[in-house]
Amino acid sequence: MAVAALSRREQNKHDKRARITAAARALFAHKGFAATTTQEIADAAGVAAGTIFTYARTKDDLLILVFHDEMLDVVERARKRALQQPRLRDQAIAFFNEIADYHERDLPLARALMRQLSYVESTDQRALVSQLMRRLTGHLAKLIDAAKATGEVAASRPLTVAARTLFAVYFLHLNGLLNGYLDRAQFERALTADFTLVLAGLAPARAAKSKIQ
Amino acid sequence: MAVAALSRREQNKHDKRARITAAARALFAHKGFAATTTQEIADAAGVAAGTIFTYARTKDDLLILVFHDEMLDVVERARKRALQQPRLRDQAIAFFNEIADYHERDLPLARALMRQLSYVESTDQRALVSQLMRRLTGHLAKLIDAAKATGEVAASRPLTVAARTLFAVYFLHLNGLLNGYLDRAQFERALTADFTLVLAGLAPARAAKSKIQ
Repeated sequence: MAVAALSRREQNKHDKRARITAAARALFAHKGFAATTTQEIADAAGVAAGTIFTYARTKDDLLILVFHDEMLDVVERARKRALQQPRLRDQAIAFFNEIADYHERDLPLARALMRQLSYVESTDQRALVSQLMRRLTGHLAKLIDAAKATGEVAASRPLTVAARTLFAVYFLHLNGLLNGYLDRAQFERALTADFTLVLAGLAPARAAKSKIQ
Repeated sequence: MAVAALSRREQNKHDKRARITAAARALFAHKGFAATTTQEIADAAGVAAGTIFTYARTKDDLLILVFHDEMLDVVERARKRALQQPRLRDQAIAFFNEIADYHERDLPLARALMRQLSYVESTDQRALVSQLMRRLTGHLAKLIDAAKATGEVAASRPLTVAARTLFAVYFLHLNGLLNGYLDRAQFERALTADFTLVLAGLAPARAAKSKIQ
């Protein structure tokens, strides 16, 4: 019975987190991130203001919580969209286009998120960001690994390095897109050009003869 | 005389900007960015609070102004430090190590800056950021171009793409360093691993025979 009671308590905690995240998400979407207060989120979630602090110390921390939960789905969609492409470069472009679509749907929220990601203070939120990054680069690494089987990528290339280099290129250009330095077409052109370069570094060494062609 | 008068007015404006930037820099360093007010900066610079607004609308904007002026020197030092290395990969690592040294000297300020760079609102400050980025990637492009002459980089590789890919890698790992996800040794190892991959993509195609060696 002690186990069942603990399980119920855990379930209750999980439900509360889900209610708080959903309430925060809805308020951020409808009122805007800046205009929403943590008290409003607590009211909408039907919890005491103090309860919120069990899950997030600040509104910025709540943003990471919302983002983390949503992004797990987005990353899964990105993986599926990538798999519709036959070649690694186009897979990587499709992957990040899905994530960029998500950020473009609510620009002020995406900008608030980028601001928050520029420095993540609390240990809990850092763990969420790290977990999400591992998931995201993990999917990329799997795509790169599969490209080794087709001979598109040399067997000796380190997957983690390759995955994070692709992510680095995306991250810089996402910053450009959210800041308005790049429009969406320029963003996609920059991804294409830079990924082509990175994938040239991943490719198996070809015979000199074939390169002249 | 009209020209001389204009020139004096321009000179006066330039001096005021330098006084404001120096006062802001000193206060950020000694009191911290968060604790400094624009009124304190105006007082220290010996200008009216209203004068500040000619140069920056907010304290965040002032940070970009300070950063821009300082970074022009840092980028020049980075270029010189890079040129002490014979090979492109080590040049790129030396280049970004100099910039990372600058950011590590005042972590709270560097974090405030990253936060601000995540979204730059005013047109004037955006122009400063773009100008600095062009200077920085311009120096990198020159290093890459010089490596074409030594045969380290294939003549056909696009300089802009190569320079911004190196910057993208650095930018991601700088974020990791400032957030404490990476310590300085891990930061340098990550730069080395990722630059090695990017430079493999830049290298001229070698004969199949030489690759087997």
